[in-house]
Amino acid sequence: MSKPGIPKGTRDFLPLQVAQRDYIFNTIRSIFIKYGYKGISTPVMENLSTLTGKYGDEGDQLLFKILNNGDYLAKADQEAIEERDSARLTSSISKRGLRYDLTVPFARYVVMHRNELQLPFRRYAIEPVWRADRPQKGRYQEFIQCDADIVGTPGLMCEAELVGLTDEVFKALNIPVIIKVNNRKVLMGIAEVCGLNEQFTEFTVAIDKLDKIGEEKVIEELKAIGVAESTVRNAIELLSTESLSKLNQALKNSEVGQQGVAELQEFHNYLDLIGHSNDVVFDGSLARGLSYYTGCIFEVKAKDFEMGSIAGGGRYDDLTGVFGLKGVSGVGISFGAERIYDIMSAQDLFPKSKLMQSRAIVLAMDNESHKYGFVQAAKLRKSGFSIDQYPEPAKFKKQMKYAHQGNYPFAIIIGEEERVNNCLTVRNMENGEQSRVTCDELIKLWKSS
Amino acid sequence: MSKPGIPKGTRDFLPLQVAQRDYIFNTIRSIFIKYGYKGISTPVMENLSTLTGKYGDEGDQLLFKILNNGDYLAKADQEAIEERDSARLTSSISKRGLRYDLTVPFARYVVMHRNELQLPFRRYAIEPVWRADRPQKGRYQEFIQCDADIVGTPGLMCEAELVGLTDEVFKALNIPVIIKVNNRKVLMGIAEVCGLNEQFTEFTVAIDKLDKIGEEKVIEELKAIGVAESTVRNAIELLSTESLSKLNQALKNSEVGQQGVAELQEFHNYLDLIGHSNDVVFDGSLARGLSYYTGCIFEVKAKDFEMGSIAGGGRYDDLTGVFGLKGVSGVGISFGAERIYDIMSAQDLFPKSKLMQSRAIVLAMDNESHKYGFVQAAKLRKSGFSIDQYPEPAKFKKQMKYAHQGNYPFAIIIGEEERVNNCLTVRNMENGEQSRVTCDELIKLWKSS
Repeated sequence: MSKPGIPKGTRDFLPLQVAQRDYIFNTIRSIFIKYGYKGISTPVMENLSTLTGKYGDEGDQLLFKILNNGDYLAKADQEAIEERDSARLTSSISKRGLRYDLTVPFARYVVMHRNELQLPFRRYAIEPVWRADRPQKGRYQEFIQCDADIVGTPGLMCEAELVGLTDEVFKALNIPVIIKVNNRKVLMGIAEVCGLNEQFTEFTVAIDKLDKIGEEKVIEELKAIGVAESTVRNAIELLSTESLSKLNQALKNSEVGQQGVAELQEFHNYLDLIGHSNDVVFDGSLARGLSYYTGCIFEVKAKDFEMGSIAGGGRYDDLTGVFGLKGVSGVGISFGAERIYDIMSAQDLFPKSKLMQSRAIVLAMDNESHKYGFVQAAKLRKSGFSIDQYPEPAKFKKQMKYAHQGNYPFAIIIGEEERVNNCLTVRNMENGEQSRVTCDELIKLWKSS
Repeated sequence: MSKPGIPKGTRDFLPLQVAQRDYIFNTIRSIFIKYGYKGISTPVMENLSTLTGKYGDEGDQLLFKILNNGDYLAKADQEAIEERDSARLTSSISKRGLRYDLTVPFARYVVMHRNELQLPFRRYAIEPVWRADRPQKGRYQEFIQCDADIVGTPGLMCEAELVGLTDEVFKALNIPVIIKVNNRKVLMGIAEVCGLNEQFTEFTVAIDKLDKIGEEKVIEELKAIGVAESTVRNAIELLSTESLSKLNQALKNSEVGQQGVAELQEFHNYLDLIGHSNDVVFDGSLARGLSYYTGCIFEVKAKDFEMGSIAGGGRYDDLTGVFGLKGVSGVGISFGAERIYDIMSAQDLFPKSKLMQSRAIVLAMDNESHKYGFVQAAKLRKSGFSIDQYPEPAKFKKQMKYAHQGNYPFAIIIGEEERVNNCLTVRNMENGEQSRVTCDELIKLWKSS
C-alpha cells in the first residue's frame, strides 16, 4: 500500500482555495482579453533543446527533465555511465523537460507559427511552470504564471498600454501598489558615463539587489571585480536621480542614455493620456535581473505588504533571435499569481460573493421527499442556479450539519408537508429565517435578486 | 541556435483553437458547478509511488518519469547500472512522474485531506494528463481530462445525477449522443450463471472489445484461456438481453446479478423523474475496461459521428483503499475533451459569438489620431468592452488589412476629422457599413445591443 504524499514544493488545493485562485486568474484573464490579448497554449513538455541555455547555468540546473521511455540505457552515453557523470549523461537519456517560464516557449511559438500569426501580436497565457528550486515558504516547484506580451512592434504605446493594464488588474484585485518604471538604456547610459561599460551585466545584477543587500554590499560586490569604489558611488548617485530632466542633463554625453530618457518621456506622455489609479514612479535603480530586457522595464510592489515584486516585465528587442527570427521587438508583463494569492489571503481581500459556488443545498426528511427534492433540484438548475443535493436520505440532523459546514447561502428543506403542498421550505443559512414558497416562486425571487 | 520544435504527441494551440477549447471547458465547467461539484486541484507532478501499480503493467510503462535533479547517478542502483537494466534503474534515479489520469490523484487527495473535506464530496477537475502512448491521429501524449466525481455515498441518485449532467453537457455542446448504461454486477451475474467466475477479468476485457473485433474474435480470445465456445456463446446471448425484466429472470440464480438489475432499475427510476434529451439505453455488453468499476457504468457515443466513446464513467466501491482508506464508495464521469473538440471542429459546432474576443480594433490615420485613439480605447475598455488597438501609427492600408485578417466585428477609424469633431468612425467589418458617432454614443449603442 502506498503511503499518500505529494512531492516537496507542490501543493493540493481545497475547493475554497481553487475558488480563490480562480478569482485571481479570471480577473487577470478578463483584463487581458479586454485589452485585446489573445490566449495561446503551449505544451507543458518542451524539447530540452528549446529550454537549455536560455536561463543561464543556474536555470539549466533548475530544469525538470523527463526520462526517455523504454530501454533508455541502451542509447545512453556509455562513457558518461562509466564515469558516473550525471551532468553529461542527462542529454542522452532525457530529451524533454517541463517549461521553466512562459516566455521562452512563447518565443519558440512565434517563430514556429510566424506564418499563422499576424504581427503585431498580443498574447496572454495563464499556465503552470516548473523550477527545481529548493522549496521554501512562498517558493514552489510548480506554480502559475500570468503573462501578457505584444510582439512585432517597437511602439511605446505598448509600454503604456501594459502599465495601464497592470494598474487595472491591481485595482480590480483591490491591492494598492507602486508601479516602478525604468529603462535599460538609462542604465547603459549611466554605465557609459561612469566608465562601467565592460561590467554592464555585473553592474545590473548588483544594483538589482540594492534594495535587498544595501549600498555597501553592492559596492563590495563590484569592487571584487575590479571597479573602483568612487565609480560605483558615482553610478549609484546617478541611479537615484529623481527627475527625468536632471537625468537627461547628467547623461548628455551618452547617446543611449539620452535615448532611454526620451523613451521614458514618451511612455509617460502616453500614460498621462489615459491616467492611472496606482502610483507609477520612475526608479533609476530598477534593473530587473533578466538579461534579455533592452528598453523600458517595470516592477510592481504591494504598498501595504512586505513582499518582493508581484509583477514585472519590460521590452526585449530580440527574444526570438535565438530561434532564428531576428528583429521582432516585444514587450511583456508577468503577474506573480502565487504572491498575489498570498497577499490576498493574508489580507482577506477575496470578495465572498465571487467565491460562492452553490446557491443552495437540497435536504430531505425521508425517502419520498428525497426523490421530490431530486426533481426540484433539476428544475432550479434548469433555471441556471447552482444547486447541490444531499445525495441520500440520511438522518436529517446529519444533512443539516453538512449544509452548515458547507457554507451554502440557502438550504431547501423538503418533508411530507412540502411534498403534499408541492412547495419548498427555504432556509437562509446565515440568519436562520425560513419561508415556504413554490419552486416557481423561488426561481422568480432569485432571478430578481 | 536551437531549431524550434515541440515533442511528438504534444501541440501548440493558436488563439482561435484556444477560444474553441475554452468554450468546451467552460461549458463543461459551468455545468459541473451547476450540479454542485467543487473544483479541486492537484499537482502535475506526483510521487511515482502514488502512480505506479495503479494502471496495470502497461500503464506503468506509459508513465512519464522525471529525472531526479543534481548528481542522480551518485545515489543510483549501481548494480542496475552495471547490468544496463533500465527498468530496474528507474526507481533509483526518478522519484516523480506526470499524472496519468485525474482519478488516482483524486483518490490520494481524498485520503490525505479526509479531515478537511466533508463526505459526501462532489469534485470536478479539468486538467491535463500525460501518457507515453505512441502518438497517432487523435491520440496525444499530453491531453485534457474533464472529470466529475461524487464520493462517500452509495446512493443511486448520484448515478442518475451524473447521467443527467452528461445529458446536459452534450445538449449544451449541440452534439447528439447515446448514453449507454450497464452494471458490473450484471456482468458478474452473467459470468456466474455461465460458469465464468474465475475468468471474470478476462471476460470483461474481451467483451469490452465486442464492438471493435466482433463476436468470433471474442470467442477465440476466451477459448485461448480454456473457456468452452458454448459457454461464451451463452454469455454473449445473455449480454444482448434487451429488457431488464428478462435479464432478471435469466439471472435468478445469481444474487449479485439480481442486485445489478435492481440497481439499474432504481437508477432508471431516478432518471425518469428528471427526464433527459439524449437517448439513455441499457446495453448488457458494455463492460468498461477499467477494473476498479464495481456498479453502474456509462459510456457516451456521438450519434452522427464515427468515433470511440467521448465520455465514460461508473461506480467504484473502493478507489481509496489502495491509499489506506476503506469503504469510500464513489461514482464519476470523465469527458474526453480532445475527441469532443475533434467532433465539434469537424462539424463546425462552435457558436461564433462565443469565440469572439475583441469587439473592435482602433485604427488611426496619423500620429495625433493614434494618440486620440489610445484615449478612446481606454474609455471603451472602462465600459467593459474588449478593444484592440493597432499599436503604432503605421500606414493605414496596413492597419486595415490587419483588421480584416483579425476577424474583428468592428473597426474604429480615427483621422483628423474625427479628432477635431471629437467622434469616431465605426466600421462594421462584415458589411462595410460606416457611421460616425461619439464615444459615449457608441458605448450606449453597444450596451443596448
